[in-house]
Amino acid sequence: MLDQTHLRNGLLRDPEAVGVYGRGATFDRVLTGLNAAITGLEAAAQPVMLRFPPVLGRRTIERCGYLHTFPHLLATAYSFEGNSRAHAEFVEAAESGNDWSPFQRMTDVVLTPAACYAVYPHLSGALPEAGVMVDVESWCFRQELSSTPERMRAFRMREFVRLGKPDEVRSWRDAWLERAQEFLNSLGLAPSLAPANDPFFGDSAAFLKASQQEQELKFELSVGVLDGVRAATISCNYHLDHFGSMFDIRLGADSAAHSGCVAFGLERLTLALFFAHGQNLSTWPAAVLDLLQLAHA
Amino acid sequence: MLDQTHLRNGLLRDPEAVGVYGRGATFDRVLTGLNAAITGLEAAAQPVMLRFPPVLGRRTIERCGYLHTFPHLLATAYSFEGNSRAHAEFVEAAESGNDWSPFQRMTDVVLTPAACYAVYPHLSGALPEAGVMVDVESWCFRQELSSTPERMRAFRMREFVRLGKPDEVRSWRDAWLERAQEFLNSLGLAPSLAPANDPFFGDSAAFLKASQQEQELKFELSVGVLDGVRAATISCNYHLDHFGSMFDIRLGADSAAHSGCVAFGLERLTLALFFAHGQNLSTWPAAVLDLLQLAHA
Repeated sequence: MLDQTHLRNGLLRDPEAVGVYGRGATFDRVLTGLNAAITGLEAAAQPVMLRFPPVLGRRTIERCGYLHTFPHLLATAYSFEGNSRAHAEFVEAAESGNDWSPFQRMTDVVLTPAACYAVYPHLSGALPEAGVMVDVESWCFRQELSSTPERMRAFRMREFVRLGKPDEVRSWRDAWLERAQEFLNSLGLAPSLAPANDPFFGDSAAFLKASQQEQELKFELSVGVLDGVRAATISCNYHLDHFGSMFDIRLGADSAAHSGCVAFGLERLTLALFFAHGQNLSTWPAAVLDLLQLAHA
Repeated sequence: MLDQTHLRNGLLRDPEAVGVYGRGATFDRVLTGLNAAITGLEAAAQPVMLRFPPVLGRRTIERCGYLHTFPHLLATAYSFEGNSRAHAEFVEAAESGNDWSPFQRMTDVVLTPAACYAVYPHLSGALPEAGVMVDVESWCFRQELSSTPERMRAFRMREFVRLGKPDEVRSWRDAWLERAQEFLNSLGLAPSLAPANDPFFGDSAAFLKASQQEQELKFELSVGVLDGVRAATISCNYHLDHFGSMFDIRLGADSAAHSGCVAFGLERLTLALFFAHGQNLSTWPAAVLDLLQLAHA
């Protein structure tokens, strides 16, 4: 039976899938408050708000180049195809603990690996002179078989995505390096800023990493999330014209828009808040509760 | 470029995946208000709140019997496995528009087809005398290739799940047939109640449907969602001891708990609200806005 005390405050391991967790009421409440605080950070810019489901067209993720960089993290949805006879064999295979895969076919969707990929196909064409900012969130999935909660396979990512002129996007991203540190400090988390250390796949990994670092494309802010564990919770990214060119997002007559994004790992930030301030919300600093709109905890 | 008016009020088709939609700000706001109103319906019972990710252990869905009844709706997550050479072939296949599947292996997770399946594995063991009620929500996915928005492949399902003695669970479910109608009426939607008409798969479909109807296990409340289209938005279910027996959820020494659930299709209900009251929230009936906590629209 449920340990309700544990449940209301924490995470619940899926007994059949490593790194997959349910969330109790308090965890969800803190995450909701955190999400509201993030909204406040760009409220003045009045971003276009979009919310996407946890799946995305497979063709979009191919166009984004994800198969080149992180093929090992991507999950693709497959479904059963066949008649009643195939169905009987399919069920028998599953119930005998055998491989289902002979009965399944690849569908047209993947599990979203990062929230902003869903945005770019909708921006094709000419942007207004001032560019655009989008506020996006979705559940994400990455096939990392780790049993530590800061590497959940399924988690929510919130992002602000800025598209516009190169200098505007880059300076917005650079300003966010400061703003993200201030935000984490105001939550009582002590961030450290460093160039990203992405787990690129295969023979090109060293080259991709060096190139990313040399061009200063991605920075991460890490905080303590568990005893002895620090993890990246916010990343600040500049994509050059990668997405603008691929999805024909234009500024003016024919120059491709540049893009950047700031991405918040909502579950990791929530874990960090519990780690920093304890399991009992009533003992959290008043300023943190205010910021998270949890004043009446 | 985004049609922002459309975006802020409506749905955004994934250009690469039929039946997959993004949501704009107003759609999301109405859905959030609706979800809060649903919370109020069982607040007095103080259900245990659980929130699950959009994936679930594959073994759990096998144990629930889903492969017998709806194998065609289930999506399973596959991921790439292989070395750098396999990776190069994988990327080449994808970029040539060829089948990726030779490079992928089945993982241990499926895309959740209904929210309550994630709950039962956590309830194994002896329940308290009074049973338990759980408030659960997750994104769900069903492989139905339809281009009408009321048959989204990815959508959110909210459920109350009641476990306990047979007569308690059944009378709770029966009472919900009335309560659900009242709730829909209060939202200005005109519901019709009917036995469910589930799309069971294959040769056993007629038998499963007749059995479900004869035992009065599932009822659906349908409302108008689009011109000329009515769709089931709430279902009221009695599972007998199906899940109690399968997951060893007990009442007293050894009798399996019975279970039932009331499930709300959040996107369909949101579509129905826009269909009934129009695209402009400021013209919606005040009582409906109050109920959705959107009084200041």
